[in-house]
Amino acid sequence: MKCRVCREPAVVDVRRHNAAFCREHFLHHCEEQVRRAIDAHGMLLPNDRVLVAVSGGKDSLALWDILRRLGYDADGLYLGLGIGGYSGESREYAHAFADARGLRLLEIDLDDDYGYDVPRAASATHRAPCGACGLSKRHLFNRAALVHGYDVVATGHNLDDEAAVLLGNVLRWDVAYLGRQYPVLPGTDGFVKKVKPLVRLGERETAAYCVLMRIDYQVEECPMAEGNRHLGYKEVLNALEDRSPGAKAAFLFGFLERGHERFAGAADDEREALGPCAVCGSPTTGEVCAFCRLRERVGVELVRQDGAR
Amino acid sequence: MKCRVCREPAVVDVRRHNAAFCREHFLHHCEEQVRRAIDAHGMLLPNDRVLVAVSGGKDSLALWDILRRLGYDADGLYLGLGIGGYSGESREYAHAFADARGLRLLEIDLDDDYGYDVPRAASATHRAPCGACGLSKRHLFNRAALVHGYDVVATGHNLDDEAAVLLGNVLRWDVAYLGRQYPVLPGTDGFVKKVKPLVRLGERETAAYCVLMRIDYQVEECPMAEGNRHLGYKEVLNALEDRSPGAKAAFLFGFLERGHERFAGAADDEREALGPCAVCGSPTTGEVCAFCRLRERVGVELVRQDGAR
Repeated sequence: MKCRVCREPAVVDVRRHNAAFCREHFLHHCEEQVRRAIDAHGMLLPNDRVLVAVSGGKDSLALWDILRRLGYDADGLYLGLGIGGYSGESREYAHAFADARGLRLLEIDLDDDYGYDVPRAASATHRAPCGACGLSKRHLFNRAALVHGYDVVATGHNLDDEAAVLLGNVLRWDVAYLGRQYPVLPGTDGFVKKVKPLVRLGERETAAYCVLMRIDYQVEECPMAEGNRHLGYKEVLNALEDRSPGAKAAFLFGFLERGHERFAGAADDEREALGPCAVCGSPTTGEVCAFCRLRERVGVELVRQDGAR
Repeated sequence: MKCRVCREPAVVDVRRHNAAFCREHFLHHCEEQVRRAIDAHGMLLPNDRVLVAVSGGKDSLALWDILRRLGYDADGLYLGLGIGGYSGESREYAHAFADARGLRLLEIDLDDDYGYDVPRAASATHRAPCGACGLSKRHLFNRAALVHGYDVVATGHNLDDEAAVLLGNVLRWDVAYLGRQYPVLPGTDGFVKKVKPLVRLGERETAAYCVLMRIDYQVEECPMAEGNRHLGYKEVLNALEDRSPGAKAAFLFGFLERGHERFAGAADDEREALGPCAVCGSPTTGEVCAFCRLRERVGVELVRQDGAR
């Protein structure tokens, strides 16, 4: 295998692009894919203050690194989920990365700051933990960005993640979710802009990026996610990709180009029905937002803004 | 296992419906699903003359049988594809079914009547045989229905078939195909109405129907279809269905209810661009239709309607 660009020996192949790269040109390839995603979808302006959602895994650390290399003003936010040793370890990777580079890493701890953690939320709701976890992340990253004056929240969702979510949404034809699934969601009243700059990179690529950049990341998958549907959808897509390289990218990018617009109306309808949460003031379609309802179910006592409990 | 209806011992379970049935109530279940599909989509009027596309397999024979039991005036059309012993055998199953019931079975032979067969078409086009086969079927069933004065062509596509086709269309976001994928396509100039009354029955159900009704059908799959994409999509959907029974039906019916309408415009645009084929007069977007172009590639000499060769 030779590098597609310089014909020197290659260290990584990207079957989807029918290409292989040496170290230098692979790192350039990753940067270029992020730059293309940002340009194509108008994700970031040159002077935006960006808040990166940092988990300590390969995707979020690669994202933070690439955004800094592309010249963006990007800080990190680590959210402690309270998933035993897994969370402790992920926190260390996040801090080690930030400290070594002199970057600013904000931190929120679900238990210390909000009185619950993901395992307790899962058992209180009798549901898969991933639901409570995702809900908490969306709420708290948004809130932190608003409070600290960031223009954009950037998350490390990669091509594999997005394709798997898309498959789940399509299998159920969940038109509201399909309308909301896009690599950039504009900021609106109470919602900061959200972007997914890794949407053109597969998880094999973000892992290789970290290895080649000597970025230490948490390799272990979350122990609470085992056997969840999302991982099942990834397996299905990997089987299709094996049979026909490029199938996953064609699926996701085909949706973004020709599918998404047909569902955008369903998401707009929902957005118009938003009002402020009686507890925290966040936009919600109900009286109390899903985040505050979750905290109530876990047993946290909340104070409504009119003073009532 | 007991029958959901009469609590007698069951002979078939239908996991998707979380139900099992005795012989009598399973046959009733199959009829009911066909009746519901016909009603929901306005597939057939009581006095329609229906032409059933009959291959000799479980689906087409079950379809023909159920349509007759529901009181429809349904004849069959068998198309000889020239796939060696497989085609010879399928022809015998089709005739045996028709003869035993005194039903009318029309017959077309690709080689005798049109000067080519599927294996030769595949090698002449250097493509998977399924493309040439499907194209020939669509063209000739439509043409035969027009010539013989049938109101509707009914095909035996079942829930598994339609879900697999849908998965393929969605993976590529082929918006024109998504716009055309529906269990009923209305008749328009040059196209007879087409319906798929088995869309609410899985292939396990049509097989069980044939076994319980003592209908002999060709069990062997087409030897030329081996390893094609469609079968790969079926495997993927079966894996998802195993994990979560009902997933396949939710995927297909969700599309019909909430997805299809969003793509209908793409199919309409195509239909407006149709004119008559210079050889056979069938509607086509080009000068010569895909069927006549296929015959030309296989080496059949065609006469254009203006007399030119």
